[in-house]
Amino acid sequence: MKRSLKDLAEQVGGRTLGNAAVDLAGVSNIQSAAPGDLVFVEDEKNLLLALESCASAVVAGEFAAEETRMKPLLIASQPRLAFARAAQILCAATKPKPGVHSSAVVDPTAHLGANAAVEERVVIAERVTIGDATRIGAGSVIGAGVSIGRDCTLYPNVTLYPGTRIGNHVIIHAGAVLGSDGFGYVRDKTTGRYEKFPQIGRLEIADHVEIGANTTIDRGALEVTRIGRGTKIDNLVHIGHNCQIGEDVVIAAQTGFSGSIVVENNVVLGGQVGIGEHARIGEGVMLGGQGGVLPKKILRGKGVAFWGTPAQPLREYLKQLAALARLAKK
Amino acid sequence: MKRSLKDLAEQVGGRTLGNAAVDLAGVSNIQSAAPGDLVFVEDEKNLLLALESCASAVVAGEFAAEETRMKPLLIASQPRLAFARAAQILCAATKPKPGVHSSAVVDPTAHLGANAAVEERVVIAERVTIGDATRIGAGSVIGAGVSIGRDCTLYPNVTLYPGTRIGNHVIIHAGAVLGSDGFGYVRDKTTGRYEKFPQIGRLEIADHVEIGANTTIDRGALEVTRIGRGTKIDNLVHIGHNCQIGEDVVIAAQTGFSGSIVVENNVVLGGQVGIGEHARIGEGVMLGGQGGVLPKKILRGKGVAFWGTPAQPLREYLKQLAALARLAKK
Amino acid sequence: MKRSLKDLAEQVGGRTLGNAAVDLAGVSNIQSAAPGDLVFVEDEKNLLLALESCASAVVAGEFAAEETRMKPLLIASQPRLAFARAAQILCAATKPKPGVHSSAVVDPTAHLGANAAVEERVVIAERVTIGDATRIGAGSVIGAGVSIGRDCTLYPNVTLYPGTRIGNHVIIHAGAVLGSDGFGYVRDKTTGRYEKFPQIGRLEIADHVEIGANTTIDRGALEVTRIGRGTKIDNLVHIGHNCQIGEDVVIAAQTGFSGSIVVENNVVLGGQVGIGEHARIGEGVMLGGQGGVLPKKILRGKGVAFWGTPAQPLREYLKQLAALARLAKK
Repeated sequence: MKRSLKDLAEQVGGRTLGNAAVDLAGVSNIQSAAPGDLVFVEDEKNLLLALESCASAVVAGEFAAEETRMKPLLIASQPRLAFARAAQILCAATKPKPGVHSSAVVDPTAHLGANAAVEERVVIAERVTIGDATRIGAGSVIGAGVSIGRDCTLYPNVTLYPGTRIGNHVIIHAGAVLGSDGFGYVRDKTTGRYEKFPQIGRLEIADHVEIGANTTIDRGALEVTRIGRGTKIDNLVHIGHNCQIGEDVVIAAQTGFSGSIVVENNVVLGGQVGIGEHARIGEGVMLGGQGGVLPKKILRGKGVAFWGTPAQPLREYLKQLAALARLAKK
Repeated sequence: MKRSLKDLAEQVGGRTLGNAAVDLAGVSNIQSAAPGDLVFVEDEKNLLLALESCASAVVAGEFAAEETRMKPLLIASQPRLAFARAAQILCAATKPKPGVHSSAVVDPTAHLGANAAVEERVVIAERVTIGDATRIGAGSVIGAGVSIGRDCTLYPNVTLYPGTRIGNHVIIHAGAVLGSDGFGYVRDKTTGRYEKFPQIGRLEIADHVEIGANTTIDRGALEVTRIGRGTKIDNLVHIGHNCQIGEDVVIAAQTGFSGSIVVENNVVLGGQVGIGEHARIGEGVMLGGQGGVLPKKILRGKGVAFWGTPAQPLREYLKQLAALARLAKK
Repeated sequence: MKRSLKDLAEQVGGRTLGNAAVDLAGVSNIQSAAPGDLVFVEDEKNLLLALESCASAVVAGEFAAEETRMKPLLIASQPRLAFARAAQILCAATKPKPGVHSSAVVDPTAHLGANAAVEERVVIAERVTIGDATRIGAGSVIGAGVSIGRDCTLYPNVTLYPGTRIGNHVIIHAGAVLGSDGFGYVRDKTTGRYEKFPQIGRLEIADHVEIGANTTIDRGALEVTRIGRGTKIDNLVHIGHNCQIGEDVVIAAQTGFSGSIVVENNVVLGGQVGIGEHARIGEGVMLGGQGGVLPKKILRGKGVAFWGTPAQPLREYLKQLAALARLAKK
């Protein structure tokens, strides 16, 4: 869907310089820009490159406000953000066709909102509710009593276990499994055999969460596993039973949480991080890739970076690495 | 399904104190208990809390035998275990509807046991046998010649490669892939290209195994990959070709095994552990999260904890961590 | 399909000794060989065992050229490779039945090559092209505009996002998700909320690549994610947006790549390796299991082994481990 630069500036926040009537049809990086594309620069270094590219307009910061000779500009205080928002508008995925595909199996007690799109071979069990304009991707299986809000996108082959609750504007990538049983057993001291501890709690996912491909999040054992509003979870992440993940948390790929962990708001976790049961990661903590947190351990400090296993303040950990390197050279 | 406390005590092992006729309808943790719920305590610390909760009865150990005034009690030598067993009875999942859903595709040569439930869109290939009362979750694909025992639960979207053999009372969570090709190639020295080494062995899973969501277990190359009775495997675990995993082994999430590893009985592995090919983990060894075992290495010692990469006895490894911390402060 | 040893020798390269007319029906390891089986030995150590086994013929190197008394031999300069090639011939999977299963949903604008096999419940969206003799496994979902070459095997329940391009002779194991959105957000400084950065690039996979079960590979953000010819990827691997993986690269299970990483040709990566964004792994580098590479870091050296986090030349890292062990014993 084409938009004029003027329209985009109004929607994403920013002002135009030069020909604001120019039509944009897509976004691109500078290297592969073609006429009709919008590109962006965050600093002066790449500005000339952008201006000399084939793009039809450039999103930039105030630093570019003098450069009006070559191309129309959209000047924004956060150019990357303005570009991302413009892309949402220009590259909006074709709306899925509303309605239920004839190959889907939908229980008659399920309730589908207006314009919900239920794709090929989807299975929807009894008492499911699905909000307006939500897309359920082909091959997904939605268990009994699940509720999904509006404007959600479930990509293909997702599995939601019974009772899972999903908010609005949630994106779930292909192959994700949500609401599965937690990993809890009781060992019989007399036989040595493990018996299943009840995994009958629930999983609740708040609004604006995005969940990566083949990620798994377990339901609570007797409690509720919760993922807070705006949290972004990458591919192949594991979140165990009873975890409480806060808002606007970022969790990179292959990170794993065992059970009953609390992650406060605005935490950033690198890839392949591992966190032991009942640990707590305080507000705004950052933990580097492959870092490990012991069970029951608490990390605290807004904006403080940790690294290593067991995780330590980055500065201390780097000192240790340096000391070890010196020691080995003696 | 409601049960009296008396009935439950008889089934899970234990004696009652107080009103044994009280009806229980479910289980809960102490905080959210409602009338009809059974709760449990393992020590005196939480006993009063449990007795003051809204639960209708409490499972506890002998330490509670004097506390009969407030609530009916079920006294058991292993209260957590008795509670878990009671939950199995009270919270038994609604039995899946026996029969084959009309949207499933079942080869005429497949044999389904009595009361087997084949859900929506399942595909069952030729010569498959499925035992009595086993559930095959929606969207699962069962390859040619697979055999699955009785009383198994396969959750949705599971894939079993041809020839895989599954015992009785096995639980397989959604998205698991069992019996896939191992990762084996031969490099042609003249061209530098990798060619596939045959991956034509089998995968055998014994009784009472549970396998987590999106976990992958490869078939043998020329041999058989085996998972022993009662072993519990969490989500996103990888087990390579030819591995021999013993009985009552516990494997936490995201742990990975390369090929031809032997894990003896009663081993406990934390999350994100990595084990190299041809390693052996001896009976009863415990290995902490993110620990790594080198190829061909042998770890031994019942109840001995190991940690780190390369894995070392925990005590030694902690000494090293402490020594490094001291060194960095000098 | 039975073949004479003579036929096999001609096809895999090598010469026969003894009765070249003997028929082979399969391959095996030495321990479980039965009449009709072909086995192999790479050195003299196991030769006698092989000759005394029940196998009908043995692949071996020149070292065995004198041992013609007991069994027919196939002498090859690379015995393991010759055996692997013979297995490809003897154990060729039964060709999937060409044609579209009646339960599949194929858009009329899709183009299927001759002898393509579209199995049960597959979904193929608009403008997909699938090459000759390619198999699409049951339950797989192929997004709009995807192209898949000839002689590919997609196992069940694979998901390909729209626009993904797959070459010829590619194998994709069950549950893999290819072309999903990368993990990219822009944080709005005023609200603290993350907004989605466009993930509208493409994923291209070259010929002869194999991709493991439940592996995930993201499309480019604005660019193209590329996997080079002949690269082999194990189970549960994650590859982020914009990565450029070279040719004949080997990536063991559970390894993860964040975004925009370059991996040159002939690299070998162990399991659970983690690589930070914009890092570069030079031609022929080897990196041990659980190793970690920091963002933007460059590793170089054909045949040089690295290990640890942050990854260091193996020799130096082992010195550090030894120094630490000594220090802790003081």
